[in-house]
Amino acid sequence: MNNPAITKIDFKALKYIADGGAILGSGGGGDPYVGRLMAQQAWGSNNTVAVIDIDELPDDALILPIAMMGAPTVMLEKFSSGEEIPKLISMMERFLGKKVAAILCIEAGGLNSTIPFIAAAQMQLPIVDGDAMGRAFPELQMVTFTLGGIQATPMAMMDEKGNGATFDTISNSWAEKLARALTIEMGGAAMVSLYPVTAAQCRNYLIRGSLTKAHRIGQIMAEHGANACAALVEEFDGTHLFQGRVRDVNRVSEGGFARGTVKLEGLGDFINREITLSFQNEFLIAREGDNVLATTPDLITLLDIFSGDAVTTELVKYGLPVNVLGLPCDPIWQSPQALEIVGPRYFKLDYDYKPI
Amino acid sequence: MNNPAITKIDFKALKYIADGGAILGSGGGGDPYVGRLMAQQAWGSNNTVAVIDIDELPDDALILPIAMMGAPTVMLEKFSSGEEIPKLISMMERFLGKKVAAILCIEAGGLNSTIPFIAAAQMQLPIVDGDAMGRAFPELQMVTFTLGGIQATPMAMMDEKGNGATFDTISNSWAEKLARALTIEMGGAAMVSLYPVTAAQCRNYLIRGSLTKAHRIGQIMAEHGANACAALVEEFDGTHLFQGRVRDVNRVSEGGFARGTVKLEGLGDFINREITLSFQNEFLIAREGDNVLATTPDLITLLDIFSGDAVTTELVKYGLPVNVLGLPCDPIWQSPQALEIVGPRYFKLDYDYKPI
Repeated sequence: MNNPAITKIDFKALKYIADGGAILGSGGGGDPYVGRLMAQQAWGSNNTVAVIDIDELPDDALILPIAMMGAPTVMLEKFSSGEEIPKLISMMERFLGKKVAAILCIEAGGLNSTIPFIAAAQMQLPIVDGDAMGRAFPELQMVTFTLGGIQATPMAMMDEKGNGATFDTISNSWAEKLARALTIEMGGAAMVSLYPVTAAQCRNYLIRGSLTKAHRIGQIMAEHGANACAALVEEFDGTHLFQGRVRDVNRVSEGGFARGTVKLEGLGDFINREITLSFQNEFLIAREGDNVLATTPDLITLLDIFSGDAVTTELVKYGLPVNVLGLPCDPIWQSPQALEIVGPRYFKLDYDYKPI
Repeated sequence: MNNPAITKIDFKALKYIADGGAILGSGGGGDPYVGRLMAQQAWGSNNTVAVIDIDELPDDALILPIAMMGAPTVMLEKFSSGEEIPKLISMMERFLGKKVAAILCIEAGGLNSTIPFIAAAQMQLPIVDGDAMGRAFPELQMVTFTLGGIQATPMAMMDEKGNGATFDTISNSWAEKLARALTIEMGGAAMVSLYPVTAAQCRNYLIRGSLTKAHRIGQIMAEHGANACAALVEEFDGTHLFQGRVRDVNRVSEGGFARGTVKLEGLGDFINREITLSFQNEFLIAREGDNVLATTPDLITLLDIFSGDAVTTELVKYGLPVNVLGLPCDPIWQSPQALEIVGPRYFKLDYDYKPI
């Protein structure tokens, strides 16, 4: 990627990041429209947020990720009260006995690329250009930090009613298990802060430049509209996996996740073909019969044929014509150790990971 | 009650409190044998614990209740690692920015009257003679403190694996909801500290002398054995509600509770009669057809006919011959406001409370 790094984000630039984040969200990470509305509500029009490189921070600077956790189907309807983030940050600062120096985006996504900017604006803090997934994943232990042995806890959680909780767990999988149970009880989605890291810890495991990348993707979408898919394939070494119309959607909310499958029947060059996508918040696999087109951790994203916008798993519906874009994941996810936590077999899909 | 207040508890006296606590537990609050084993493991034989009157403490002294939360069926098999209590106390002290002056028993019960003594011995703190229910109730908002507008949170929770959480909720019912969900995720039972109170807050709402009362009940049981039921009826204004043999037990674990019914067919003076008891951790009602013999908040306890020991809801089994003892609840529970949170209708039982 040879685009210049972004350094300042205003509300217009945030729209690019939300739209681009939704592409990187691989079907999850929340809806960019919701992300934008939340930002508008919390942010007003006068704010800008400074985006910084991790190397600008001293080793001991405390960096705090902020995100919304829960099923995207719920996030779509459950708005933040605007008070969760300042409360979360003060809970974490109190717990850690240290002031926060910068905000971090834990995953890419239409909503979860936007929320850290709301936090940064509210708290007048800079935001680090990067994230810990390079995409969205459904479970909280699925971050590069876990590969580095960094703890998810102390972790704090707030709902829009004003209920808060903190966690201190023996593993990141236990943090996922406990936080997921509470998310369900809080109504299916909650605001969280987790993986408090120092800049030194962060340097080795951050997926750098992902905000610049999301921003660039958003720009391309604005420029190319319906042709965004082809433009993104070209600029980001992607693959145009399929073009088709949604024939079936099976969607259930279980265990705090949105799970299901989507069947597409081919259009254009793909006529008379049919593929099936499975998802748990995010798309996990695209198959044509037993032939795997792409699997997690690579990115699988649907784009509306007419608008070029990302179609998240909670918004896929019968009849919608879409392009299926495959993008390579960050190389950090391709090691056997990484595939154990984010590869298809973790999700009980009986296929090997085959990079696109 | 004219018994002298207890002031010092050794391991032998703790057995009385566990046995007597199980009678006050109204079928819940945990098994006294498990309570005794946990104490033995944690306590050794050299310890004694000072029991004090609430009025011995200055107004601003911090009093911390410690209890096990969860389904009694699980508590029976899930032992403490011994490390939860010191961790809970240090979490709470850190959260509150204040040292704990004394431990409190939140509910009576074979296990939950014992655990505060383990805490007091481990932390070398005195324990206040009293509790916040005068019996056991299934949900954490069902304490006298709720009547006084005292918050359950900050609340801390630890499991035996080392996972911890804290809560800060908008109501005591929300604390129950969130903590219950986490208890389930932690395996069905966890150690908790909640309702941190000052001595000043505590004075008006404490049910005073309940440790002395549990101790006295334990002594009576040791003296009277199989005849304990009659002796308790006499000393504590109780009622011998029934004598019978267990004919049916329906028991399910749901939502983190042990729920079910027990049918008894009469023996002795009660021959040819039949009653049904319903429980949610604790016994809630004893009915003969539509005729109510006793309901929550009064105490309904089963005693083994041969040993005189309390039979908790998780240990009731087919064929067991039992006496059913009714004891009046503390008068604080008889107001309309109190009955809203602990009366039969809260538990969806379509009967009015009729004091025994």
